[in-house]
Amino acid sequence: MPEPARPGSEELVLAFLAEAGDEFVSGEAISDKLGLSRAAVWKHVNALRSQGYRIEAVPARGYRLLEIPDRLGELEVRPLLNTHDVGQALHWYEEVGSTNDVAKELADEGALHGEVVIAERQSAGRGRRGRSWSSPPRKNLYLSVVLRPDLPPARAPEVTLLAAVAVCQAVRRAGVASAAIKWPNDVLASGRKLAGVLTEMAAEVERVQWLVVGIGVNVNAAADDFPDELRELATSLLIERGDPVPRALFAAALLTALEEWLDRHAAEGFAPVRAAWREMSDTLGREVRVRVGSADLVGLAEDVDETGALLVRTASGLERVVAGDVEMLRGR
Amino acid sequence: MPEPARPGSEELVLAFLAEAGDEFVSGEAISDKLGLSRAAVWKHVNALRSQGYRIEAVPARGYRLLEIPDRLGELEVRPLLNTHDVGQALHWYEEVGSTNDVAKELADEGALHGEVVIAERQSAGRGRRGRSWSSPPRKNLYLSVVLRPDLPPARAPEVTLLAAVAVCQAVRRAGVASAAIKWPNDVLASGRKLAGVLTEMAAEVERVQWLVVGIGVNVNAAADDFPDELRELATSLLIERGDPVPRALFAAALLTALEEWLDRHAAEGFAPVRAAWREMSDTLGREVRVRVGSADLVGLAEDVDETGALLVRTASGLERVVAGDVEMLRGR
Repeated sequence: MPEPARPGSEELVLAFLAEAGDEFVSGEAISDKLGLSRAAVWKHVNALRSQGYRIEAVPARGYRLLEIPDRLGELEVRPLLNTHDVGQALHWYEEVGSTNDVAKELADEGALHGEVVIAERQSAGRGRRGRSWSSPPRKNLYLSVVLRPDLPPARAPEVTLLAAVAVCQAVRRAGVASAAIKWPNDVLASGRKLAGVLTEMAAEVERVQWLVVGIGVNVNAAADDFPDELRELATSLLIERGDPVPRALFAAALLTALEEWLDRHAAEGFAPVRAAWREMSDTLGREVRVRVGSADLVGLAEDVDETGALLVRTASGLERVVAGDVEMLRGR
Repeated sequence: MPEPARPGSEELVLAFLAEAGDEFVSGEAISDKLGLSRAAVWKHVNALRSQGYRIEAVPARGYRLLEIPDRLGELEVRPLLNTHDVGQALHWYEEVGSTNDVAKELADEGALHGEVVIAERQSAGRGRRGRSWSSPPRKNLYLSVVLRPDLPPARAPEVTLLAAVAVCQAVRRAGVASAAIKWPNDVLASGRKLAGVLTEMAAEVERVQWLVVGIGVNVNAAADDFPDELRELATSLLIERGDPVPRALFAAALLTALEEWLDRHAAEGFAPVRAAWREMSDTLGREVRVRVGSADLVGLAEDVDETGALLVRTASGLERVVAGDVEMLRGR
């Protein structure tokens, strides 16, 4: 596992200021503590300011952190992470086509397990099955994680269900207790889409080379931020809670939850993930229509099996669905 | 499905000469038949000569094809193919690192179902699990096929077993009737490796984007052509038959067999592939040791199941093996 990158001086200065909260910290205290010259401290403060940190400087009192930019870079997210791998290397972009495409390139070039790509906006965000993913800038969370699990490709669906569990858990902890998972990996609230997962992989037939798990969460998007045709279909943490969520905090909580579940999956297999998925499911116990290829399958969504497939009780028997789009026909 | 590329004039001239066999064909007959000027016919003949075709030209008699170069390019292989997709686009290289790597790049750039990469030599030929594949130049067959089946990744093992069936069938038809398959996809003769398959893929969790099936067959390699450490482990069509095999003919027969099995798989599913695999198996009914991760599993190789996994009867019960290396402990 990769050694967490050592924080640079700039990051240490920021951490020092952040720790002081509303208090002033003298330049002398910082330079003593971090072994930096006063001039170096001043240089780092200015570098932070140029990145959007508002830092007050008052002669004889020192520095005070007034505002952290609403950005999801390494400086903002990493200090909040409680992980050993996931997010310890974090590639931040103002804009990309799609974070999955960037992460796939990095993975092909040898990116390590847990490296994360985050972008403030996506010009060509993608959802499952080649669909587009609405990506208004600086409102939401668009990230992709490179994973190198020791799994055959047939077990990759376990990781995509795992990601949905981590996202749903993070969303619930952020105050949307009603969030639930629609098979296989959408997170819904009030019946609308709040988050989605797109997992891609490169593999030999018997082993995964890498998985890229792309996660899109509507965080602070207001209804107006969505395109017209999505307004009735999408929701966000902001819309559900009524107030905004600090994005960096949410991103860190999500990555931390993801790693906890990955560790658990590596140690205990799919069973605990499956149990959590069932508990969070919005699909099980409901009448569904599943589009499988060009055919429709209608029945009761009974369970997910030990491979992550959806089991649907139809008039003609129990059908096992490994891929398809689910539509809810009736509530519980 | 892609339209077969239209043969160029050069290919038509070659076909004309090839059809005449040992007879001379007059330049006039060629130019009349193909609607080319005499000068154009002459130009094409010279272009063919520069590619290694020996073509005799005798005034007042015409042209005669004396020798076809031992090469696996489009001109040599395509006229022998009996396929609608596989090999209709054929990318030939004198040397590549690995045909799978080239095919994967082409697939990422949008190569169609059935496009084939063939190389005369590989500087970094790869086998399963990151191992190297011995690739002496111009003796053997190194090719990779881009496939775009409508399958979830969990069903990819079916295609790799299918490829082994096609290879084994082509090898048997080439006169090595004893050839048999070692699970999952090596082809053996006299207990030594004659061919191998390396399948790689890009996928979303629920659907394959592309598969690249890499096939290496030892065709005309003599024992001396293999590195010392492989001499006891590898064999070839030449070694088994005692005389060489026209490589282009064998390549075309293999690609044709591959497409026949792919068509059958698309229409009828895995069952007929599984039946053929069983019939060709060298593994079933034998005591085997399977290395699974860091553990060894010893027992009777009983069957392949409906997913392509190997079922091994051990002291503690029936184990299902999806990935691993098999070693034969005893004969039938």
